[in-house]
Amino acid sequence: MMGRDEGTTRGIDRRHFLRLLGATGGTAAVFGAMDAWGMIAASAAEAPPDLEGSADGRRVIILGAGLAGMTAAYELAKLGYETPIIEARDFAGGRCQTARRGFVQTEVTGRTQRALFDEGQHFNHGPWRIPYHHRSTLHYTREFDVPLEIMVNDNPNAWAYREEEDGNPFSGERVRIRELRADIGGYTAELLAKAVDQSRLDDELTEEDRERLIDYLVSFGQLDRSALEYRGTGGRGYEEDPGAGLNPGVPSDPHAFRDVLSHGAINSFRAIDSHTQKNTMFQPVGGMDQLARGFERAVGHMIDYGQEVVEIRQNDDGVRIVVEDRGTGETREVEGDYCLCTIPLSVLNQIPSDLSPEFSQAMNQVTYASTGKIGLQFGRRFWELDDHIYGGHTITNLQGIGNITYPSYGWQEQKGVLQGYYNFGSDAIEVSAMTSAERTRFALEAGSKIHGEAYEREFETAFSVAWHLIPYSLGGWASWSSDARQNAYPILNEPDGRILLAGEHLSYMTGWMSGAIESAWIQMEKIHQHAQATATRVQEAA
Amino acid sequence: MMGRDEGTTRGIDRRHFLRLLGATGGTAAVFGAMDAWGMIAASAAEAPPDLEGSADGRRVIILGAGLAGMTAAYELAKLGYETPIIEARDFAGGRCQTARRGFVQTEVTGRTQRALFDEGQHFNHGPWRIPYHHRSTLHYTREFDVPLEIMVNDNPNAWAYREEEDGNPFSGERVRIRELRADIGGYTAELLAKAVDQSRLDDELTEEDRERLIDYLVSFGQLDRSALEYRGTGGRGYEEDPGAGLNPGVPSDPHAFRDVLSHGAINSFRAIDSHTQKNTMFQPVGGMDQLARGFERAVGHMIDYGQEVVEIRQNDDGVRIVVEDRGTGETREVEGDYCLCTIPLSVLNQIPSDLSPEFSQAMNQVTYASTGKIGLQFGRRFWELDDHIYGGHTITNLQGIGNITYPSYGWQEQKGVLQGYYNFGSDAIEVSAMTSAERTRFALEAGSKIHGEAYEREFETAFSVAWHLIPYSLGGWASWSSDARQNAYPILNEPDGRILLAGEHLSYMTGWMSGAIESAWIQMEKIHQHAQATATRVQEAA
Repeated sequence: MMGRDEGTTRGIDRRHFLRLLGATGGTAAVFGAMDAWGMIAASAAEAPPDLEGSADGRRVIILGAGLAGMTAAYELAKLGYETPIIEARDFAGGRCQTARRGFVQTEVTGRTQRALFDEGQHFNHGPWRIPYHHRSTLHYTREFDVPLEIMVNDNPNAWAYREEEDGNPFSGERVRIRELRADIGGYTAELLAKAVDQSRLDDELTEEDRERLIDYLVSFGQLDRSALEYRGTGGRGYEEDPGAGLNPGVPSDPHAFRDVLSHGAINSFRAIDSHTQKNTMFQPVGGMDQLARGFERAVGHMIDYGQEVVEIRQNDDGVRIVVEDRGTGETREVEGDYCLCTIPLSVLNQIPSDLSPEFSQAMNQVTYASTGKIGLQFGRRFWELDDHIYGGHTITNLQGIGNITYPSYGWQEQKGVLQGYYNFGSDAIEVSAMTSAERTRFALEAGSKIHGEAYEREFETAFSVAWHLIPYSLGGWASWSSDARQNAYPILNEPDGRILLAGEHLSYMTGWMSGAIESAWIQMEKIHQHAQATATRVQEAA
Repeated sequence: MMGRDEGTTRGIDRRHFLRLLGATGGTAAVFGAMDAWGMIAASAAEAPPDLEGSADGRRVIILGAGLAGMTAAYELAKLGYETPIIEARDFAGGRCQTARRGFVQTEVTGRTQRALFDEGQHFNHGPWRIPYHHRSTLHYTREFDVPLEIMVNDNPNAWAYREEEDGNPFSGERVRIRELRADIGGYTAELLAKAVDQSRLDDELTEEDRERLIDYLVSFGQLDRSALEYRGTGGRGYEEDPGAGLNPGVPSDPHAFRDVLSHGAINSFRAIDSHTQKNTMFQPVGGMDQLARGFERAVGHMIDYGQEVVEIRQNDDGVRIVVEDRGTGETREVEGDYCLCTIPLSVLNQIPSDLSPEFSQAMNQVTYASTGKIGLQFGRRFWELDDHIYGGHTITNLQGIGNITYPSYGWQEQKGVLQGYYNFGSDAIEVSAMTSAERTRFALEAGSKIHGEAYEREFETAFSVAWHLIPYSLGGWASWSSDARQNAYPILNEPDGRILLAGEHLSYMTGWMSGAIESAWIQMEKIHQHAQATATRVQEAA
């Protein structure tokens, strides 16, 4: 493991500031310079805050053993806090789950699924991607020795499929994404290059700019240098690949410009991937839950599993949590100095509590994403063997399906689990109303349009999730309207008495594990500062 | 392992054709329909030719235990051929090598290097990439159970560096590739979108096309929808990433259009990666030589190591190879019915042989690529920890350096080996004239311009290769001029008496392992057809 030598973090800057202030005005000046909950600022995104001071026997009750809860417990325990974690599920990780053989899931409807994948197969039905810039998540994969592998998040050799539709030149057809990307890039480069060359844009460009721009367009679009025309390119694929012996290959012909323009998939192409979808993209070897297992190795002894929170109470001096044992049905009370609550708001807003009316009102302004996925195990990797697709996504406009994603592990092995749909909103609600057998049928019928009868023939077993129906989650992630982000979000980031919230919902990275982790970093720092400040006051008053 | 059910191959088509012909005219008609060496055609690129018939005790002497030689031995042995392999080196694989602790290499200059990398570290100084469409290579990774992992061949978060230069706005600066890609994509989309919107290109487009084109350009370039302006995008990176709590992130400002136009790195951007550089890209886990080890497990018992070919003789009935044992210096003769020679032409054209003058003349028209690489082991993965670069290439215009490539294995481990230069032509010759210590110094000084003093501080050990100086290779790969490709190449693909050539040089995939493998498939099929045809004639004559 590497130490925290990645450079200056804001945590350090802040400490230096406080030291400077402390050096001139003494401890009282430091804490007088801000209120007891002060120092609310953006977290250092690379590493947990570098905190000093001790916990003085304080006890922080943590609700939820998801990544936010376990992050806070791990870091606060280092400072000496007692950090019992109350977890309703029988396992740690929250939504950071992986379905593998034996994994059981019961929806709020009572519908139960047990994953029957072969040993060695798995499906990340929750979070499934770690972009390289999610440094907080990567901090813990390093800290807990969780090996990573590449998650192929873009594969130009996958298909773009358009549902049958009148007048669509690609109606009911699959076409390689690489062909569309090459062709639309080539044709637009040609259009612009010719316009520049014919001096139609002279008001915009100097002569030197024009030359450089044409150079760029010729290489970007792979244009014929003298005619400035796009005539296809090797990168779009060959009719027959260049080979050995007397086979120089047979180039492929581009699609017609107008046809390409009418293919909706082109509107998913970007000059650069969007912020969260950028390469390099990782996944833990063996499943996303390996990250949860890493945390669990460190804080598992603090977790009380199978305990449902039924009341959240507080007064000026501390908190009192009423929990019900899901096994025995018995309730008991857990007391502490603070409560860090990582329960999703969709669940929290149904639990009786002493949270202020303003806070409760703010909670109710947040909606949670309806979203579903299905993992399909096939006995033969026909997408690799027949279609030469290794990872990445086939883009479809099939309602309720969206993208089909091929596994980024077990290359060239016999079997594999692909993601047969990833749906959102009303599509997700509609599909989730089906039985699990119907969801499977729905996914197989759609995939067969693209992959033919192998999709039915090789199918072995499925596991689907509908996050809005999963107890203790009730949604994929928090969806903030811009109004709620402006009015409710700041309130929920503040402490309400001795209760603080944490989780992906308290971040601008909703739905991402880094949001949960960094939110925990920020909120635990507030708790520690409050504990230190009040300890100092008690000391000074004595 | 999956069977050969990937669909119809040309081998099967051909067999069907021959069967049809055989059904009407008998065996003689089949073989009368072509000359004994007939059926010269493009190979099936997915799997070895599906051959029938037996070898009748024939013996094919294979020169070289590289991928071509081992492919031919493996497949011919299945048909019953005796296939002794003569190999000059002490190991199999030819150029398919990996430097790891203890690997020793002596250049023709007598300069010897021993790799001192830590256990677990390695450097692919020969082939290092397997594109998803190199099906023949992937056929054997599957056949020999060689596990694969992703080779990150494109990383927009790596740097583009420009050497100090008057008037260059990026002189001596490093800039993230993602910024350049986003900005040039955005600005060109803006130019074109505005031109279309202002009806300057109406002669080219219908109204419907115009609307669709603008839609595409807005999403591709991430333009402001109403102003059709590029104002930056999250994908180019944030000044400060969106985080948890009250941190929505701070967007970054784009570079000026003119500045981006003057950055030479933009001319390496493509709408789609070129044919050979396309994702998904693989590497064998543990080093490229794991593929060679896979072959060796199957054919190692046929290989006679440390045997240098000093003469290649033939007459109408067979071949006679004179070999010299590199240990004892003793020579001996090896006889067979055919010779499949996979020795690079740069080496072969110095070996006395009975090859025809026409053939020898053709050989001399080929040049071999001068090329060099250096692997640098660092004690700390500063590129990951400080720069957040996981794999891919930093693009430079530093002479003799080219790209710097970060390792695609051992993510987040302590140490790593990166590729400090990859040079070609006269650059490669110049750098290879240095001692190995000087090459290291050269690489470190260049890399320090981009990565600062960590590049010197964390450096531990280096291993460099200059392929044009490596005995039995004398070059990276065959470089065919278009003239030589037209005039010499077809001759060299033909048998010369009972001698046939194979290797990457006899392909349109020069420098790629698939070229070697597929060339072997084609040439071994010719040998088998000749053997079958002549056996049939003998039988009919009898």
